[in-house]
Amino acid sequence: MRQSVDLAKCYRLLNHGPTVLVSARHAGRANVMAAAWCMPLDFDPPKVAVVLDKNTFTRGLLEASGHFALCVPCAGQVDLVERLGSTSGREEDKFAHPDLQLIDEPAARSPLVAGCVAWLDCVRLAEPVIEGRYDLFLGQVQAAWADDAVFRNGHWEFEGAPDALRTLHHVAGGHYLTIGRPLDAR
Amino acid sequence: MRQSVDLAKCYRLLNHGPTVLVSARHAGRANVMAAAWCMPLDFDPPKVAVVLDKNTFTRGLLEASGHFALCVPCAGQVDLVERLGSTSGREEDKFAHPDLQLIDEPAARSPLVAGCVAWLDCVRLAEPVIEGRYDLFLGQVQAAWADDAVFRNGHWEFEGAPDALRTLHHVAGGHYLTIGRPLDAR
Repeated sequence: MRQSVDLAKCYRLLNHGPTVLVSARHAGRANVMAAAWCMPLDFDPPKVAVVLDKNTFTRGLLEASGHFALCVPCAGQVDLVERLGSTSGREEDKFAHPDLQLIDEPAARSPLVAGCVAWLDCVRLAEPVIEGRYDLFLGQVQAAWADDAVFRNGHWEFEGAPDALRTLHHVAGGHYLTIGRPLDAR
Repeated sequence: MRQSVDLAKCYRLLNHGPTVLVSARHAGRANVMAAAWCMPLDFDPPKVAVVLDKNTFTRGLLEASGHFALCVPCAGQVDLVERLGSTSGREEDKFAHPDLQLIDEPAARSPLVAGCVAWLDCVRLAEPVIEGRYDLFLGQVQAAWADDAVFRNGHWEFEGAPDALRTLHHVAGGHYLTIGRPLDAR
């Protein structure tokens, strides 16, 4: 079940380096793309960084609206993630496929993809120089949620849950690794 | 065995989101710190982004030398990674511990940590505004290497290798996840 995540701990949703879905909505059009180049940027207030190519339709929606969401997909969504990362919202309506559904969450400004295991709703921190030079976008997290089947008490707990709920970590060309076992330092 | 990695494919060493070690050397002092907030930034030429807190000793060495390396540690090094991420080179010489050894690689400008599974030697792309505002440092990869026990033909291949060679993905407070199984999209 989707539960709210304390903003002080929401960096943990991205800290282990999952591939994410980036979504944005503007003037009645929504879009979702896949992005492996995403990371936390600060704890308090929580900030994130993500690379968005100039050709992406999502980038234009983000720039126009000033908002975006990061959704953390899971192994069961691998084909959806690959499709969202290899097609463009310029050429087709990604929502025409039944595997892409949104969550009805009034507190979110940007679309949240159903079936993911975590979501971070963000406001853009406009930095036009690095956006233009490096395709690098920064945001501040306004609200976060996670599926308590795998994220509880501020920690990912994948052991005991179905493997289909493990996060995806893209290598290249549709080849992914799923997150594995816990390991604690001494 | 350590093998050179084609620069066109070196983004794959970081694409799945591992926690890294960041190293730098200046005027006879070297240091290594742990960083979970690191990602590829571009393919060609290959660039990277990493967050380095103002308090870190490594950041000063990087700023003074204009160079740094990213080393990708593995599960067998979890205690070393935790120590490097929770102590400061300002207060102690991290090389005083026998578990921190460097590789003799003449082509690298910054220290490469022995026992890691991948290494990216980088030159800083100075962006003082975002460095100061967000602690965000960018670099261009000059050379890269990986251990061919787990990275071959441009792909991570952890299956069949010892689990101690799997990459580490930090969640918080010394709690890590190791990378898991491969999964290919349709």
